[in-house]
Amino acid sequence: MQFSGDILIEDEFLRDGLQNEERIFTLAEKLEFLAALEAAGLRRIQVGSFVHPKWVPQMADTDALCEAMPRNEGVTYTALVLNGAGLDRALAVGLGHLSISISASETHSRKNTNRSVDEGRAAITPVIERALSEGVTVRAGIQSALGCGFEGRIDPARVIAIAREFAALGVQEINIADTAGLANPVQVFDLCRKLQDAIGPDVALSLHLHDTRGLGLANMLAGLQAGVRIFDAAMGGLGGCPFVPEATGNVATEDLAFACEEMGLATGIDWQKLRAPVARAEALLGRALPARQSHVPSPPWLREVA
Amino acid sequence: MQFSGDILIEDEFLRDGLQNEERIFTLAEKLEFLAALEAAGLRRIQVGSFVHPKWVPQMADTDALCEAMPRNEGVTYTALVLNGAGLDRALAVGLGHLSISISASETHSRKNTNRSVDEGRAAITPVIERALSEGVTVRAGIQSALGCGFEGRIDPARVIAIAREFAALGVQEINIADTAGLANPVQVFDLCRKLQDAIGPDVALSLHLHDTRGLGLANMLAGLQAGVRIFDAAMGGLGGCPFVPEATGNVATEDLAFACEEMGLATGIDWQKLRAPVARAEALLGRALPARQSHVPSPPWLREVA
Repeated sequence: MQFSGDILIEDEFLRDGLQNEERIFTLAEKLEFLAALEAAGLRRIQVGSFVHPKWVPQMADTDALCEAMPRNEGVTYTALVLNGAGLDRALAVGLGHLSISISASETHSRKNTNRSVDEGRAAITPVIERALSEGVTVRAGIQSALGCGFEGRIDPARVIAIAREFAALGVQEINIADTAGLANPVQVFDLCRKLQDAIGPDVALSLHLHDTRGLGLANMLAGLQAGVRIFDAAMGGLGGCPFVPEATGNVATEDLAFACEEMGLATGIDWQKLRAPVARAEALLGRALPARQSHVPSPPWLREVA
Repeated sequence: MQFSGDILIEDEFLRDGLQNEERIFTLAEKLEFLAALEAAGLRRIQVGSFVHPKWVPQMADTDALCEAMPRNEGVTYTALVLNGAGLDRALAVGLGHLSISISASETHSRKNTNRSVDEGRAAITPVIERALSEGVTVRAGIQSALGCGFEGRIDPARVIAIAREFAALGVQEINIADTAGLANPVQVFDLCRKLQDAIGPDVALSLHLHDTRGLGLANMLAGLQAGVRIFDAAMGGLGGCPFVPEATGNVATEDLAFACEEMGLATGIDWQKLRAPVARAEALLGRALPARQSHVPSPPWLREVA
């Protein structure tokens, strides 16, 4: 077991992190966290989602955030889009990178978008095509791809079929989400291998993992072994899905970055710089977040730079 | 990535779990937890340690516990021994399986036993020899083998040299402990491969992992890939070392068992039966324990048997 090269971590604190919180963060607070993420070296940041404010009020100011935020060179600012109306809003604020996703679980799909999986596939195709035609870099996402808290196992053949469709549309990346944190490493390894074969070497494969059952970093390791080099995470390990009650905690950015760096992979992230914003988020939320690194001393070999 | 066969989990709730708690559990409580562990299918249980009650008062009744507990067929009852006085006590209560261990870290060794590593090696040799000559099955342990919260990295050559000495004495198993939870999967894989080569196929290798930095199950996965099939864990993820302030939380028995079963490995453990004793421990301690499985719904495919 040996790794080298670069890892890209997409931080989703501002989207998957905040969307499940009762407390609605202000635009100023979001800008503050965005700046902290950039200062720690994050190079891709999901800042929000263009969904209906009635369903996810925490994301209602995503348009305003995109207007107000800086657009620093070397940083990709991205957001989540689930339909054509969302794409209109994303294009209006000039985002050049988007996650456009559907669910592989019938129940999750109906709860999230009031559509069956096949209806979701049909509905998302023109959205992706239009985004690509507008020059947007598209990451097509498959939620609940590794298990569903409602219906259990998800047929990998269905996930692979959806991924093939996305690849045929010309998307640049396909994101596989363990939305409820139900995956195990053998499953992750197998599915990632099969997916990469199915979509070909020119489409990147990324993983979105939750740590619901403590397997977040073990699943990351399996993904690494299958060749995945892009991982979603959220500062502090905040996270969840408003329509998936079990989905607790994204893999924490600081824990994932530490793990990668220890194994010889370069993340570009100085995760020790996330201690302060995590403490700030905990103060605002009034509770401790699940990330580990932010709550234990740095390893002795890193303490001099802490 | 594919696994099959059996996994042996040694539960250390009663030793590594309780030894760090301010609250001293009664003999009756310990017997209750022991019964719960057996009822859930644990086949090897570390019930306490024969150390000086002045230093670890939580373990002062280990002799009494060994006298009072049942000795059910198919269950191995074991305890921790650090010196000859401890071995005397273990032999007096008729334990046939013992963990006899030293630390690979100078600082940890001095804090734990007031000896250098080399002094520890010299002192433990006659203890192991005597235990073996009395017919005890000996698991020789190397604490802080994968990193030390005080001095950082530990030279793997030192760990391998100690393991060779232990193997030459005729011990049945060698246990490698990540006492401070500082290991990463690449390191675990490499060291386990080298250790198994060094000690030969007739000596079992086991891993004792802490989840301090969220890598507990990722390190387990690396150990599995290196061929390890015996893992320590503690119900509820309780744990720590009184002399290693950073050492928080053993890998949780229920999380490790779930992970193994999901990957096709048989543990013999019905981890859902640990929910009740974990809730009981949390009530006694007045706080939530770090295990995940005990705090989230079972996956849909297991709910009918919950």
